[in-house]
Amino acid sequence: MSGLISPEPSTQVEPLQLVPRMKEQGYAVQYVERRREWIEKTTGCCLKHVGACSIPSQEMRGNIENPIGAIQMPLGVAGPLLVNGNHACGTFYVPMATTEGALVRSYERGMAALTRAGGVATRIHQDENRIAPIFCFDNVLDSFEFAQGVTEDFEAIREAAESTTGHGKLVRLECHPVGREVIVNFSYTTADAHGMNMIVKATERACQQIMDRSKARTFHLFSGFSSEKRASGSLLAGGKGKRVTAGALVHKATVKSYLHTTPAQLSDLWRHTVLGHLQANTIGYNGQYANGLAAIFIACGQDVANIANSAVGITNFEVTDNGDLYATVTLPSLTVATVGGGTALGTSRECLDMLGCAGPGRAAKFAEIVAAAILAGELSMGSAIASNEFVQAHETLGRNRPV
Amino acid sequence: MSGLISPEPSTQVEPLQLVPRMKEQGYAVQYVERRREWIEKTTGCCLKHVGACSIPSQEMRGNIENPIGAIQMPLGVAGPLLVNGNHACGTFYVPMATTEGALVRSYERGMAALTRAGGVATRIHQDENRIAPIFCFDNVLDSFEFAQGVTEDFEAIREAAESTTGHGKLVRLECHPVGREVIVNFSYTTADAHGMNMIVKATERACQQIMDRSKARTFHLFSGFSSEKRASGSLLAGGKGKRVTAGALVHKATVKSYLHTTPAQLSDLWRHTVLGHLQANTIGYNGQYANGLAAIFIACGQDVANIANSAVGITNFEVTDNGDLYATVTLPSLTVATVGGGTALGTSRECLDMLGCAGPGRAAKFAEIVAAAILAGELSMGSAIASNEFVQAHETLGRNRPV
Amino acid sequence: MSGLISPEPSTQVEPLQLVPRMKEQGYAVQYVERRREWIEKTTGCCLKHVGACSIPSQEMRGNIENPIGAIQMPLGVAGPLLVNGNHACGTFYVPMATTEGALVRSYERGMAALTRAGGVATRIHQDENRIAPIFCFDNVLDSFEFAQGVTEDFEAIREAAESTTGHGKLVRLECHPVGREVIVNFSYTTADAHGMNMIVKATERACQQIMDRSKARTFHLFSGFSSEKRASGSLLAGGKGKRVTAGALVHKATVKSYLHTTPAQLSDLWRHTVLGHLQANTIGYNGQYANGLAAIFIACGQDVANIANSAVGITNFEVTDNGDLYATVTLPSLTVATVGGGTALGTSRECLDMLGCAGPGRAAKFAEIVAAAILAGELSMGSAIASNEFVQAHETLGRNRPV
Amino acid sequence: MSGLISPEPSTQVEPLQLVPRMKEQGYAVQYVERRREWIEKTTGCCLKHVGACSIPSQEMRGNIENPIGAIQMPLGVAGPLLVNGNHACGTFYVPMATTEGALVRSYERGMAALTRAGGVATRIHQDENRIAPIFCFDNVLDSFEFAQGVTEDFEAIREAAESTTGHGKLVRLECHPVGREVIVNFSYTTADAHGMNMIVKATERACQQIMDRSKARTFHLFSGFSSEKRASGSLLAGGKGKRVTAGALVHKATVKSYLHTTPAQLSDLWRHTVLGHLQANTIGYNGQYANGLAAIFIACGQDVANIANSAVGITNFEVTDNGDLYATVTLPSLTVATVGGGTALGTSRECLDMLGCAGPGRAAKFAEIVAAAILAGELSMGSAIASNEFVQAHETLGRNRPV
Repeated sequence: MSGLISPEPSTQVEPLQLVPRMKEQGYAVQYVERRREWIEKTTGCCLKHVGACSIPSQEMRGNIENPIGAIQMPLGVAGPLLVNGNHACGTFYVPMATTEGALVRSYERGMAALTRAGGVATRIHQDENRIAPIFCFDNVLDSFEFAQGVTEDFEAIREAAESTTGHGKLVRLECHPVGREVIVNFSYTTADAHGMNMIVKATERACQQIMDRSKARTFHLFSGFSSEKRASGSLLAGGKGKRVTAGALVHKATVKSYLHTTPAQLSDLWRHTVLGHLQANTIGYNGQYANGLAAIFIACGQDVANIANSAVGITNFEVTDNGDLYATVTLPSLTVATVGGGTALGTSRECLDMLGCAGPGRAAKFAEIVAAAILAGELSMGSAIASNEFVQAHETLGRNRPV
Repeated sequence: MSGLISPEPSTQVEPLQLVPRMKEQGYAVQYVERRREWIEKTTGCCLKHVGACSIPSQEMRGNIENPIGAIQMPLGVAGPLLVNGNHACGTFYVPMATTEGALVRSYERGMAALTRAGGVATRIHQDENRIAPIFCFDNVLDSFEFAQGVTEDFEAIREAAESTTGHGKLVRLECHPVGREVIVNFSYTTADAHGMNMIVKATERACQQIMDRSKARTFHLFSGFSSEKRASGSLLAGGKGKRVTAGALVHKATVKSYLHTTPAQLSDLWRHTVLGHLQANTIGYNGQYANGLAAIFIACGQDVANIANSAVGITNFEVTDNGDLYATVTLPSLTVATVGGGTALGTSRECLDMLGCAGPGRAAKFAEIVAAAILAGELSMGSAIASNEFVQAHETLGRNRPV
Repeated sequence: MSGLISPEPSTQVEPLQLVPRMKEQGYAVQYVERRREWIEKTTGCCLKHVGACSIPSQEMRGNIENPIGAIQMPLGVAGPLLVNGNHACGTFYVPMATTEGALVRSYERGMAALTRAGGVATRIHQDENRIAPIFCFDNVLDSFEFAQGVTEDFEAIREAAESTTGHGKLVRLECHPVGREVIVNFSYTTADAHGMNMIVKATERACQQIMDRSKARTFHLFSGFSSEKRASGSLLAGGKGKRVTAGALVHKATVKSYLHTTPAQLSDLWRHTVLGHLQANTIGYNGQYANGLAAIFIACGQDVANIANSAVGITNFEVTDNGDLYATVTLPSLTVATVGGGTALGTSRECLDMLGCAGPGRAAKFAEIVAAAILAGELSMGSAIASNEFVQAHETLGRNRPV
Repeated sequence: MSGLISPEPSTQVEPLQLVPRMKEQGYAVQYVERRREWIEKTTGCCLKHVGACSIPSQEMRGNIENPIGAIQMPLGVAGPLLVNGNHACGTFYVPMATTEGALVRSYERGMAALTRAGGVATRIHQDENRIAPIFCFDNVLDSFEFAQGVTEDFEAIREAAESTTGHGKLVRLECHPVGREVIVNFSYTTADAHGMNMIVKATERACQQIMDRSKARTFHLFSGFSSEKRASGSLLAGGKGKRVTAGALVHKATVKSYLHTTPAQLSDLWRHTVLGHLQANTIGYNGQYANGLAAIFIACGQDVANIANSAVGITNFEVTDNGDLYATVTLPSLTVATVGGGTALGTSRECLDMLGCAGPGRAAKFAEIVAAAILAGELSMGSAIASNEFVQAHETLGRNRPV
């Protein structure tokens, strides 16, 4: 992709003033510095804090281009969070990077209540990633024939796909015929990596094979169906990452003392806010998954844009026969990783370590902790609204700027 | 909210091991350090990079609780991006924080093409923020009477709301009756701030006044309708922030030389990926708004969770009568700020400065630059898919980890 | 449109065997008969019942082409239904045409319970119809200028639109910019008619005027935004017809004796079925609006395809502080008429008469009765499910066919 | 269900004036007449046309309660429609019951164009019906265990379900965990019947067995997930009836002579109306499936309320490399039947006969014809809009009422 910025000599009146190119893409510390200075000079800004970067710049290769340093975002910690998962068992302190005052305290409050209640039970129902190319045919007869037959070729397609990767496994194909086109959803397991690059490459190989053997005129590697980094209804049935549920039984006394409300009030709030979600034509129902996901994803080196799909889900507050609270979150498409991407870099690695989640074999554990933390946030925020403490909390902890 | 974590002596068998509390909430540098050490000891991790924080910890007050330092994320820069907005005019270099290899290069490529094409035209159609309490009545007659009458009380409600803020202006009320409940959407202008805390406080005051004068039994300050940090269909009509369009006419020769594809191929890709979006029941249509939004939001101290609502929008690629490309993005609910929140902190301030967008009077300018940058990303990613270079680009620039 | 079927002489190998054309489009009784005989001969079927039509065929002009008679559908009646509306006050017996066994009995049961409970309160919050042309511009600057200015031209546009109709009134314009295009939503009141033809004609005139005065390159009279005869999220905020709420307080003893369940069971069912609606990504929430709407629309000469938009809405079952039930339905886009379309034909007129709703000045009354009837259906069906009588009821009343 | 209307003596002040009950539910002709007279007297209307019913009233048993006669709706016929399906092969004349002027002519025009073009190719990709009970557990661990294990019990569950029916076959179970609840989607084949009663009964039996063997506290037979008679995003992937595609290649000369437009204009219209659908947050994309479905469903004795789910689908207009048109419709959840319900009654049977679709073994054929007819409507309506003839056509053929 070095040729991405090609010259266009004939029409070029004045040359584009591109960010300077340097040797080996300029990851050496002096190149990063020189580039930063070029930006300072060109734009007139001062990048002192950006330069105060402790990540060795050479380690940024593969994670960023045109590097000029690093941003910093305040990091807080919330806990204790007692988790009873299949992969995560024990008490955790969760790193959260944010600039929204009251957010960490709010999650901490929810975590304390849940821990006092005996902890959060959590399970992963499904774990896969997907990509969905679209194949174009001359007519609906050809597309029908293809859609009926493609699953019979599963083994050959799987072999082609998996020949490009040591970690990705193709587990399922699913056809969505739309007129004379057929969208084919490829579902993979990707071990502890996010795996998008992996499965894109594998699927491209598989598509070439399909092209050879079918009447397809052409194909596009992406149809838009996969809902990578977008919110869609189809995400509710899973497919982008881990489908996780987390729940806790919270005694009414704990709800009262820690959360200043009652199970009945929370249930009533749920009923009324469902109306607002329905009226807005929201996908799913939740209070603020995006808040917790953003804070943890940023801290732990996740691909932050994946909160667009990960934040689709459903929260529930139910009153038990005993008058206690059973609270749950369901995150059907939670995209997290503990290897690859930004997970090994500086603070990301440290934050994953704080949870015992750095490296291979830890993605499921990490997903369970995330789901439990999200439950804490839903519970605390719901309680703040139900008890009318929301404004007061943000007044006390939010920045007292003239805004 | 200091009482958020209340003791619950009677049922408490062993005390929760909370993150230690310190004087004045522990923002002094020695407290941050002590807290970080406590976490290191408790969880067994090492937080060297987290501690290498150049933001004075006292400045974090109002942005985070339980601070232990800061995270770092690689910062790259993409440009030049020529913008012809109402507020942003000129060439910009856009700071992007990410760990996804190829992202910055891809945006840069799109920006170069757009700049070569003469720049991106962009306009803000609407600029407001909203919150939507729900009022509960005994029956549908009372709710009808209320919904018919509440707009007549607009002036009094406005006065009550605005009495709590110097910057927020209530511009509109809109009723959504649902059975015997009425959701009332409050639309505000919030100047250059995100303004959520501001309008929540103002609306709480207004609601108290409404309660005094109406037959409402009760109300909830949040109904879920506002779609703050969630994706919903109602966001397409605007309401959470700025409704921005950005577009550019790109000559077919520029499409070819910079993007390695043709307007017809991009238009064809659009048609086919619309099918995938429809089939997935996606809200709106776009390639990857979340990617660019996340990278810029993190760099510039925005509330990152707002990408859940900001990423709702519609991209279009059209072939003109001359065979050139007209490409657009529409971001109906783009939530950005240049004051308040995390905008003044360390690297955030520097990144905003890089765009000439730090401080009051700059939010509209910032929104226009963001929209133009998002267009660059859509164009570049679409072209990589249309020209089958997507995999190759990620192979070359992505991290060569065993994933 | 007589030229709709044009000859295509050169490529025509054998002539299409069209349904025979007759004088004055063949509405005279002998022509209808001759056409019916032609169909019988051509397809080999016998159309005895189709021919047993009591509607004078000449009266069908304007409602159908190529008439061959009429279909018949069983008509039942459900009631008494006590309605306390602004327009409908009193006890009604509702005509319902259906072939689904148990449907009429189920609605009757709900009506009896509601009548015993003191009747259904109902109100119309809004009453309008809409159509949304899309205007195409060269670039986003032109579309911005247009969108900002078009409301200033409201009076002139209104005059142009209303010059084509004596009943339609243009009440509002609303712009939805999407890239360089602008969708303009035209909202009209249409008195007691459905009014689609009326507002299409009026809007076409208005669009021509807009074209003369703006930089628009072209326009399409329909953008798809109006959601005529389609289900969409935007319908929840109203726009296609009447936005109606209906509700009733039902004493727990009445719930028990008439519906064999309890308010708490109904509320619990609501909570759990909301989950299913969310998981399916349904628009709104309801049990079976389409059932009642279809049965009444067919009986009363409505445009039946409008159930696609009318069936979007939200049902709610709430337990009051006294343990009683407050049940509501909200139909935001209920499209009904008492003049025009099929409302004056034979059985349609009779069924409207049964409700005192035939002719001018009755559409609001009709809408209130429909909403009340829909509430009865939701209540009865919900109760049958909550009390586990659903299967038994359909066993007893459904057709005992080998299915 | 005779006890549906129970007396409630103690609180009953004045008795409800119910529609009179008669022997054997009053299907004998004299009872129907007496009931009709009672309605005439009670409401003051005249039901002459309603009484002019040629369906023997005894045959209405199982299709309606409280019968008072039948409604009539004008029936027209559109064709010729050449279909090249797997089940439907040949030329058809399609019965359409409607009161919307121009509808039949518009479909006829589309059918003529498609027949001239060589006919409509159509295929059924999937054929099943579904119902989705929800099971409630104490906690997320129990629901996880259940969701993981239930498919292992498939055989036993299938046996229980199929013990209640001779025609329904359980083909698949699919779990959707939501918090501590699990929605289980049961997919059945139902031969030529609609089959809702059949699968409800079968599933109730299966649920009882599941309750015996699992830790479920309780269940509801309906969760709302199935989207019976409602519009939902999940319908796009099929499940309620037949997933059908239909397409045709139409030469540009045929487009011009029959439809007065060009493939490029239709493709352009598609692009622009997709924007409106996206902006309205519509499910899928289509012009007016509901129109054709309503007209054919009413004519052919289908359950008309099923147009709410059947009308969800996607239309596409594509220009081929030769400049011709390839037009398609995709109806993922088309609910049709040729046995059971109202299919055998009077005019319904005759209309099905007109298509050679009455009785067992014909449902797939019927579905293919319906899909082809829907394509004709999309093509004709799209062309009328693209060529600006829409208003003129409705002016000429619509009723010239003062509306």
